[in-house]
Amino acid sequence: MPKPDNSPLPGKPASLRTRDRILATSLALFNADGVAKVSASRIAAELGMSQGNLHYHFRRKEEIVDRLVRRYEQEAGPVLAGPTSELASVDDLWLFLHLGFEKIFEYRFIYREIDYLTTEFPSLGARMRELTAQGIETLKRLCTQLAAAGCLRASEEEIAVLALQMILTATCWFTFARLLPETEDTGPGRAAYQVLSLLVPFLADNERTYVEYLRRKYRA
Amino acid sequence: MPKPDNSPLPGKPASLRTRDRILATSLALFNADGVAKVSASRIAAELGMSQGNLHYHFRRKEEIVDRLVRRYEQEAGPVLAGPTSELASVDDLWLFLHLGFEKIFEYRFIYREIDYLTTEFPSLGARMRELTAQGIETLKRLCTQLAAAGCLRASEEEIAVLALQMILTATCWFTFARLLPETEDTGPGRAAYQVLSLLVPFLADNERTYVEYLRRKYRA
Repeated sequence: MPKPDNSPLPGKPASLRTRDRILATSLALFNADGVAKVSASRIAAELGMSQGNLHYHFRRKEEIVDRLVRRYEQEAGPVLAGPTSELASVDDLWLFLHLGFEKIFEYRFIYREIDYLTTEFPSLGARMRELTAQGIETLKRLCTQLAAAGCLRASEEEIAVLALQMILTATCWFTFARLLPETEDTGPGRAAYQVLSLLVPFLADNERTYVEYLRRKYRA
Repeated sequence: MPKPDNSPLPGKPASLRTRDRILATSLALFNADGVAKVSASRIAAELGMSQGNLHYHFRRKEEIVDRLVRRYEQEAGPVLAGPTSELASVDDLWLFLHLGFEKIFEYRFIYREIDYLTTEFPSLGARMRELTAQGIETLKRLCTQLAAAGCLRASEEEIAVLALQMILTATCWFTFARLLPETEDTGPGRAAYQVLSLLVPFLADNERTYVEYLRRKYRA
């Protein structure tokens, strides 16, 4: 998949390309070292750009953070809305989860630093809470469809617990990684494995064998 | 239960009592507003104490944080070690989980701000990772005992996934609470309900009915 932030689009003005480059580099630095440890001057240095030039595009680091969070919302929104057609197999649910994980992993600093970010930017907190609520609702809907299709055996209460637990695991994984011993696998594959494992007890037999196979692939 | 931090012990020198009062007040403020938002001068004001007096006991706010984390480790250690006798019923596991939750809730700022704290205090990170590893190992051991006693039907792999998932939920709950809509119940009872729910699919029938009853009590 092409990375839109790194490939200068033919028709795009140079200033837009520069903004994209700043955002892509900032995202990589925030993911690696955290927002608090990455200064505007470090972002400029990493881009081989003067601080004045960076300042022309974004007056403060906070503006970069805000822009990245808004971009995450724009990109995660359609994913979290879920497929429009009714689910007929666990494979469709897995695709939804996989795409969700990819997006969370791409912007993992947001969830890892959610305590800091929601304290610093109250409006960001409200928007992230809306996104979480959307994810939980979509997961409930998809699981209910799978139950209707006979793939999942779970009551309404069980589905509510399961949906919350899946979203908790996906969004808090990179926070939890801070608490895991360094010898443990803390990558996104482990998170996907845990989330798929939550489904297993509720699956019909043939779907269960398939998901057990799928989840092991994440721990290769 | 008496609060050791607030009750001046008869034989304790006054300076120790003052240290305890500072720690108890700081803990309450950190839990409410977060470490970054609570200054040393606010702690002093809250205690009706001069800043000089506070400084005499703790030179920097960081020393208070460090002391609180060490106290958490001392108190959580024996809980996380688990019961020494073999488990024979789910009730014993529930007691272990309940005591663990109480401790995490008492010091919830540590887990909620784990990203910030492990970045600021690298040695704290290593110690917290050890504590997490201990919790996971104890839970695996207790679940294996319950499986041997016929209360739990789960393979070694299922127990490993379950133990990790329970610890993730308990430790990351107050981070996840930042992501939940404000209309949702984000209290510790909801976390206990989620953790007990993780057990349910693996329980033998009579134990299952009991745990379903138990977990509902947390959502009253």
